Amino acid sequence: MFQRLLVPKVAASLGCKSFRNATIMSALPQARTYSIKADNASAQPLMDIDPKLLKVQRTESPKKLLPAKDLIFGKNFTDHMLTVEWSSKHGWYAPQITPYQNLSLDPATCVFHYAFECFEGLKAYKDKDGVARLFRPDKNMARMNTSAARIALPTFGSEAMVELIKKFVALEERFIPEERGYSLYLRPTMIGTQKTLGVGPPRSALLYMIASPVGPYYPTGFKAVSLSARSDIVRAWPGGCGDKKLGANYAPCIKPQQEAAEQGYQQNLWLFGEEGYVTEVGTMNVFFAWKTPDGKKELITAPLDGTILNGVTRDSILELAREKLTKEGWTISERKFTIGEVAKAADEGRLLEAFGAGTAAVVSPINKINWDGGIHGDARDIHVPLQEGKEAGPLAENFWKWMAERQYGDVESDWSVKVPKWTE
Amino acid sequence: MFQRLLVPKVAASLGCKSFRNATIMSALPQARTYSIKADNASAQPLMDIDPKLLKVQRTESPKKLLPAKDLIFGKNFTDHMLTVEWSSKHGWYAPQITPYQNLSLDPATCVFHYAFECFEGLKAYKDKDGVARLFRPDKNMARMNTSAARIALPTFGSEAMVELIKKFVALEERFIPEERGYSLYLRPTMIGTQKTLGVGPPRSALLYMIASPVGPYYPTGFKAVSLSARSDIVRAWPGGCGDKKLGANYAPCIKPQQEAAEQGYQQNLWLFGEEGYVTEVGTMNVFFAWKTPDGKKELITAPLDGTILNGVTRDSILELAREKLTKEGWTISERKFTIGEVAKAADEGRLLEAFGAGTAAVVSPINKINWDGGIHGDARDIHVPLQEGKEAGPLAENFWKWMAERQYGDVESDWSVKVPKWTE
Repeated sequence: MFQRLLVPKVAASLGCKSFRNATIMSALPQARTYSIKADNASAQPLMDIDPKLLKVQRTESPKKLLPAKDLIFGKNFTDHMLTVEWSSKHGWYAPQITPYQNLSLDPATCVFHYAFECFEGLKAYKDKDGVARLFRPDKNMARMNTSAARIALPTFGSEAMVELIKKFVALEERFIPEERGYSLYLRPTMIGTQKTLGVGPPRSALLYMIASPVGPYYPTGFKAVSLSARSDIVRAWPGGCGDKKLGANYAPCIKPQQEAAEQGYQQNLWLFGEEGYVTEVGTMNVFFAWKTPDGKKELITAPLDGTILNGVTRDSILELAREKLTKEGWTISERKFTIGEVAKAADEGRLLEAFGAGTAAVVSPINKINWDGGIHGDARDIHVPLQEGKEAGPLAENFWKWMAERQYGDVESDWSVKVPKWTE
Repeated sequence: MFQRLLVPKVAASLGCKSFRNATIMSALPQARTYSIKADNASAQPLMDIDPKLLKVQRTESPKKLLPAKDLIFGKNFTDHMLTVEWSSKHGWYAPQITPYQNLSLDPATCVFHYAFECFEGLKAYKDKDGVARLFRPDKNMARMNTSAARIALPTFGSEAMVELIKKFVALEERFIPEERGYSLYLRPTMIGTQKTLGVGPPRSALLYMIASPVGPYYPTGFKAVSLSARSDIVRAWPGGCGDKKLGANYAPCIKPQQEAAEQGYQQNLWLFGEEGYVTEVGTMNVFFAWKTPDGKKELITAPLDGTILNGVTRDSILELAREKLTKEGWTISERKFTIGEVAKAADEGRLLEAFGAGTAAVVSPINKINWDGGIHGDARDIHVPLQEGKEAGPLAENFWKWMAERQYGDVESDWSVKVPKWTE
């Protein structure tokens, strides 16, 4: 039998009349359906996620909002969580918004043993009119589906999930700080919940979302970071899954991160292969701006070859760069390049800027890279030029500004998705 | 503050007089200690796991034993579980044996997001005198420590954990089936329990062990398996963590496994590199027996180069082979070899046997490998010879016998560790 995952006390209450927005289960057959290969041998279509079935159980003890200055990324959460359960026989069950609460899981549950887990990170912003806005949530949901499929977790209708995210954000709107630079970080997560130790595709799963109000990554302005670039630890490889947002890609990066910190560097720059291809930085994509040996301005980032994450910020920066920089003579490139080329550009005075790009910081300027020199070379520092007294170059500053304008709705764009106010 | 992970109802009972083997906390300062770099800036030694502090809360509703024929790997569990909590400020807390129960975890807990999880698999056997025996548990605990350290989870005294495993097995002895070929599968697991989303080393963790009575892998005798060897999906990479028993290594292997099954093959043979180096099979190590081109008998398996798991069964088979086969003219090799060499040996009539080696099956004979031919070659089948009407070759049969003799204590060896009977 399908088991509820929430702790018994709350789970028992999920069918009761306290739901304010409950839709009866008889509505299920009209819901959008999809098929997957699983236990469903009769090829009956499985239920997709259906926002119309959302049930809401509001908390009876709303949290007090923290002062903006006390917000720490991913430490404090809103009143509620969104959950959608799945089984290989039925598909997706009715989505639920419940009070934020613990998950109660059998110790044999497959997420604890075989890392059946993937996640997303996106933010809700409040615009000048007090309207909540999401930034390209369709991209996150599309990526989450590719992540899930790679580890035999179920996929779902991206649009349906975006609808649910909007509902959730509308309910939690008071947690989105008004202050510019602040936002509500959303963390959709999917875990396998089958409670057996056999190594196989999970026959049950839970998609859930929690949310944490966050302050600006750089509360007092940019602060450039230094990187450690090593050849002996490899984050991802062709034929692996480094391009998916899997939990599996994160835990193995902590030890190198600690070792970098012990050496005085804030992040790792992940290289690949004897050639020393530049891939990612920490948990971000990475961009370099340089003059090519023949004097042309180029903004370059690694290509989507399966070893880097397909970042939403990366994609947005590329699109903004093509719109705004090409006409100023820049070439915008997604192609392989090596740390050796970066070092040579620095030595020859051609290196202009370097920055990471991700949801948390948007852009994160880089001022120094310690490179171990590869398999045969000597360790050295690569210095990224920064104007005296500045912590970011003009490109990083512009991208940050252009992104923020769209995130906060100062500049209207298709990327910014308004969240309708909550209605019962 | 440090939070109890067990569901509130039970956690609240952990300090009460129902413990039959409780040791008071004042014994803590005498316990063995160790140091790690963490929150412990004052370099106060952190507590190691101390078996003397074990607290036992017996179940009030013992389970009925299942008939041997109904035992399915990792589906049914014993009455109790072993838990040891850790914090970066204190180290390891007093170990506990409690009734088997759900874990209650905040949805932000880092194990759900970043795969802070590692595990082990070992078995307890019942010998002809009814004495429970473990097989090389020291190897499993040593490996668990290397796995934990790789993902910034805490390490522990291996001997202390072996003591706790013995206590647990003694308490659960009735779940070890008497029948030959049956055993009690033990699953030590460690998860990060910090409940924040920042990507960093967990400041709290839980080590727990559950146990599942299991039947023989081949209830009606060996059944040789067929493999799919692909070049486009890569399990592990130098500089990665394929040699650690991390959850992260498992979820990404399911989709290739499903695709192999759809093609009619039971497992994947994991290759590496353009050369097509043979690494592992499914979740086992793999051995080939062949005659070299100059006519010498060789038993060969991949070396411990960081891309394969350091299997306890692999190690045991190598040691048995060196003891028993070298004198029969066999060369026992841990070195790199390619699927192309295997294909050539098969074509030239030199391939003798192939089998996987792991805790679940001990040995798993292979009869066919479908190889995609690498980047430039054509797909083909490699047939592993088996005598008419047989499902395993003589080497596989012998290794299985030699291993079982030691696991069940028919042949005394240092590998077999007797478990003292339970005493309060």
